[in-house]
Amino acid sequence: MKRRPERPAATPTPAGSPAPPDGQDGRKRVVIEAVTPEIDAGRFPAKRVTGETVTVEADIFGDGHDTVVAVLRYRHQSAGDWIEVPMSPLPNDRWRGEFPVTELGRYLFTLEGWIDHFETWRRQLAKRIEAGQDVTIEFESGARMVEAAAARATGSVAEASSLAAMAQAIRVGGTRGIDAINSELSALMRRFAERSRATTYPRELEVVVEPVKARFSSWYELFPRSTGVAGKHGTFKDVERLLPEVARMGFDVLYLPPIHPIGKTHRKGANNKPAAEGEPGSPWAIGSEQGGHKSVHPELGTLDDFRHLVSAAAEQGIDVALDIAFQCSPDHPYTREHPEWFKHRPDGSIQYAENPPKKYEDIYPFDFETEHWRELWQELLSIFLFWSEQGVRIFRVDNPHTKPFGFWEWLVGEVRRSNPDVILLSEAFTRPSRPNLWPNTPDILTEYLQTGGKPAFQARLVLAATLGASYGIYGPAFELMESRPREQGSEEYLDSEKYQLRAWDRKAPDSLRELIAIVNRVRHENPALQTDRGLRFHPTENDQLLAYSKSSPDNSNIVLAVVNCDPHHVQRGMVNLPLEELGIERDRPYQAHELITGARYIWNGPRNYVEINPYAMPAQLFRFRRRVRSEHDFEYFM
Amino acid sequence: MKRRPERPAATPTPAGSPAPPDGQDGRKRVVIEAVTPEIDAGRFPAKRVTGETVTVEADIFGDGHDTVVAVLRYRHQSAGDWIEVPMSPLPNDRWRGEFPVTELGRYLFTLEGWIDHFETWRRQLAKRIEAGQDVTIEFESGARMVEAAAARATGSVAEASSLAAMAQAIRVGGTRGIDAINSELSALMRRFAERSRATTYPRELEVVVEPVKARFSSWYELFPRSTGVAGKHGTFKDVERLLPEVARMGFDVLYLPPIHPIGKTHRKGANNKPAAEGEPGSPWAIGSEQGGHKSVHPELGTLDDFRHLVSAAAEQGIDVALDIAFQCSPDHPYTREHPEWFKHRPDGSIQYAENPPKKYEDIYPFDFETEHWRELWQELLSIFLFWSEQGVRIFRVDNPHTKPFGFWEWLVGEVRRSNPDVILLSEAFTRPSRPNLWPNTPDILTEYLQTGGKPAFQARLVLAATLGASYGIYGPAFELMESRPREQGSEEYLDSEKYQLRAWDRKAPDSLRELIAIVNRVRHENPALQTDRGLRFHPTENDQLLAYSKSSPDNSNIVLAVVNCDPHHVQRGMVNLPLEELGIERDRPYQAHELITGARYIWNGPRNYVEINPYAMPAQLFRFRRRVRSEHDFEYFM
Repeated sequence: MKRRPERPAATPTPAGSPAPPDGQDGRKRVVIEAVTPEIDAGRFPAKRVTGETVTVEADIFGDGHDTVVAVLRYRHQSAGDWIEVPMSPLPNDRWRGEFPVTELGRYLFTLEGWIDHFETWRRQLAKRIEAGQDVTIEFESGARMVEAAAARATGSVAEASSLAAMAQAIRVGGTRGIDAINSELSALMRRFAERSRATTYPRELEVVVEPVKARFSSWYELFPRSTGVAGKHGTFKDVERLLPEVARMGFDVLYLPPIHPIGKTHRKGANNKPAAEGEPGSPWAIGSEQGGHKSVHPELGTLDDFRHLVSAAAEQGIDVALDIAFQCSPDHPYTREHPEWFKHRPDGSIQYAENPPKKYEDIYPFDFETEHWRELWQELLSIFLFWSEQGVRIFRVDNPHTKPFGFWEWLVGEVRRSNPDVILLSEAFTRPSRPNLWPNTPDILTEYLQTGGKPAFQARLVLAATLGASYGIYGPAFELMESRPREQGSEEYLDSEKYQLRAWDRKAPDSLRELIAIVNRVRHENPALQTDRGLRFHPTENDQLLAYSKSSPDNSNIVLAVVNCDPHHVQRGMVNLPLEELGIERDRPYQAHELITGARYIWNGPRNYVEINPYAMPAQLFRFRRRVRSEHDFEYFM
Repeated sequence: MKRRPERPAATPTPAGSPAPPDGQDGRKRVVIEAVTPEIDAGRFPAKRVTGETVTVEADIFGDGHDTVVAVLRYRHQSAGDWIEVPMSPLPNDRWRGEFPVTELGRYLFTLEGWIDHFETWRRQLAKRIEAGQDVTIEFESGARMVEAAAARATGSVAEASSLAAMAQAIRVGGTRGIDAINSELSALMRRFAERSRATTYPRELEVVVEPVKARFSSWYELFPRSTGVAGKHGTFKDVERLLPEVARMGFDVLYLPPIHPIGKTHRKGANNKPAAEGEPGSPWAIGSEQGGHKSVHPELGTLDDFRHLVSAAAEQGIDVALDIAFQCSPDHPYTREHPEWFKHRPDGSIQYAENPPKKYEDIYPFDFETEHWRELWQELLSIFLFWSEQGVRIFRVDNPHTKPFGFWEWLVGEVRRSNPDVILLSEAFTRPSRPNLWPNTPDILTEYLQTGGKPAFQARLVLAATLGASYGIYGPAFELMESRPREQGSEEYLDSEKYQLRAWDRKAPDSLRELIAIVNRVRHENPALQTDRGLRFHPTENDQLLAYSKSSPDNSNIVLAVVNCDPHHVQRGMVNLPLEELGIERDRPYQAHELITGARYIWNGPRNYVEINPYAMPAQLFRFRRRVRSEHDFEYFM
């Protein structure tokens, strides 16, 4: 019976009709599809951070009415063996399983499903017995399945003999047979299941696991050169002096614009005019005779000074993030050593950056279509690796959208292969963008901030810090509410730090630093604000009021934000909350605890009145507590 | 410059850092993703019918701001050469192209995109000239690109020399240079584009093209054995006699339950009781000593008679559809010739069908887990091929969900490989089901039809015929409004034709045959009802009123259906129409032409009052005409 016949024994089929698929077993009856997470048929990995759980779902079904079983298999890329966990059926052929990701790097997972003949038999036997049918033959069928499992349990002597005994008991039938069909037997039958016809999902899917800061981080950008005392050029040592202040505001990433030597040719001066003698130039015009992307601008200090800054920051829980801008000033060593990495004009000169008719003659872009792209890619990778060796764990990538996608995919993979703890934050032009919200940057002072005064800064701070689990500000321009544009209609700052040193009065009384500290503390105290997955918007009955909530993965922590987007007028209106989703009982009052001011309100039902005066505070953050005792109203909410 | 160096010339990279991907060109800068139609990453083909157009869309983009160009390539499986058509950009990096499918079988398509350096140059040159810049060098850059194209135009002598001349004109510059940059040059540059770094989508996707009846067909099911005169067993000749009536009602598929010899063992009689002597049995208990799935039940006639019926039906535009039920009576020849295709109980008997505690001892299912699955598959395929050779083009597949998915995928592919004009209609249990709506079947008499009287039959007819481009009825039970269940709470017919012959009074005055003819005529006159793609539901202000519209692919034909689902009471309410989507001007009256009664109404605006008396007609079908002249209201709507 076990031999595979050479030719069909059946009625001859018409000429030309091929045999059923060779090399495949047509008896694999389970189908696995619609797997999540799966991005572009496995082309790209899903992302998680350490400590999270990967929840895997799939449609898993067979033909007919037999019982289906499914398992999830996973392993870290560095582990040889798969770990297998059972999946549970949800309604409508959907199945779910999960696994924890505790290590950085790549995890692989796949699924397997099969028809469980024993469980099918067990289920049907119960129905037959209930209907009073003669089940003598069914007992025999079951005994044979258990014997087959015993035969598969080679190497597990005790289990094999248990199974053999159970098979015999079932064969005898009657009460003894029924008693033998217990949970111990089910567990053994599952362990030694017949899986030769199991369907394995054809793809091994990937999950990239990053450090927690890839999901939840608070960024503060500053220009080191503006941190000097008495108008002097700032240094890494000056930045070190400011670390306690950055930490006090609650930031855990300190992001620096490029720290490399700055080119002199076509250097730009204050307010983007040609530089006069002595002007410092733009840090993004990278490279001079003093070095390129692996060198430090001498006026900032030495490489040792930089490493010291990185260590000192780490002691305060702060990562120093470096800006990686892949472009060169005309004075960059690459332009002499590797002219083949740049595009040349018919006159032999290197092609500068331009967006016709605009010309950026102080910047040479790399030519990613060069014949020598392999060497170029290697060199650019070596820049990341160089700074990784100096202790940098976070990079912010400038203008990624002007370099090929294939280049980034390769580079990110290579960087992470040796440095799985490194995080790359892409500037916002890529598709899709990583959510990281910035109310201002050195390039962008929005009209809203130019004209909205303090309420505008406060509102945008709360929006960024609560809509995005990762967010950042460019300071001290932000907390000191710098709002002057270079000219009417421009989003450029007047006297932008991109082109000149600025002296900031960091101790100014009218600073947002206290509010920033409170908002960052609220972020740290509320897991709901540490992920973007639980974001929901809620209808308000006033277009100027924006309401949304975030919830933690286990739903135990929920924060509601209501923001008055009108920086000039008091706005009031009803906010509609989906109480059930928020875990609040419909018919009982609940406490709304405002987290910025500490005020506590008793709310009732899904519609609640909110009135926000932007001159007091344009945003409110609520955490809800339901009442568990009726006396001592405020003490017994939980 | 063209040589590929053996080792990086750049700064040495850290040990262990691998070379950029080998065998790939890192300069392919275009990305193609999110292609539609694409099902499960190309695992399954999309479906179309002959004469349709396949509209292909994709996200296609590159890095930076250079101009991207994309083409769609397609071919029929039988054609060696690809046909290439340009794609057009839509907003947001989305691109669209299309191709017609005129032949049955499989089409393949894929996409290609590349950076168009010439077009980028042309666009930028215009901006430079407008800004009054010196463009001497840019003319030279352009001339070199055109020369390169001339070099690629080998074998196209005239074009190559045109291009060379244009290159020279551009090089000279000035007005002559600008004049040379014309649409002729653009066309030539597109034709001889530099595509060595084009990105080809990594998959060739498939489209299966079926006959039009796979999308649009009207099915009529009848039991041939009930078509006899004076209580005699009906024959294929009797069915032939009824063809004109079937055609008059507007049906184009005549679907017959299994026509094979019927088993005697455990035969079932009237109302599913054990058969008494002389009872005919169920046509689904297939096989007796007179033959199996490739034989004809002798009382229906001969195989010749059957072929004659198929030909006679074809003359009236009707396809005869055969029911394929892969199961056997205990008397089927397979049970003796191929016992290895069935599951055996421990006592050696063949396992009958069951759904414990229910037993169906007159039916043996095949065992798709048999060691001999290959031969079983071959034999089952040969059944389809046998009937195809008898002229059958449409099969209705019974209980497909109890056979493995892999089997069906293989079988459907094999049947279509030699018979691309064959259509398989799956009974409705599969995932996903092919939309084909049936208000009744020999198995299902819904409670709604049992209790709703004539309005219920009328409403369900219109719903099926207008919601589904393919629909069917089981007659004459349907048009004669047979509504008696076997027992209270059952959906089985009393005196079901599954188990006995029935004499139907096909000329009865109270028959729905005239309404059926009208509804089928409306379907034929309105392309909107011949596809399911343009279906939209519209809000009504009365839950008993169901409103929806269908539109043809080119939107030129739109039909609105309003159905009163309450068979007992007049229902009235407002129907809300999205006038813009329906192509109706908001501020002008428009004509609503009711297609069943022929009544014409003038409607105004999106909200219109509808009142439906189920005893008159529970459903209304409207076609809209907008007024083009103000006089002669009804003549000048179009």
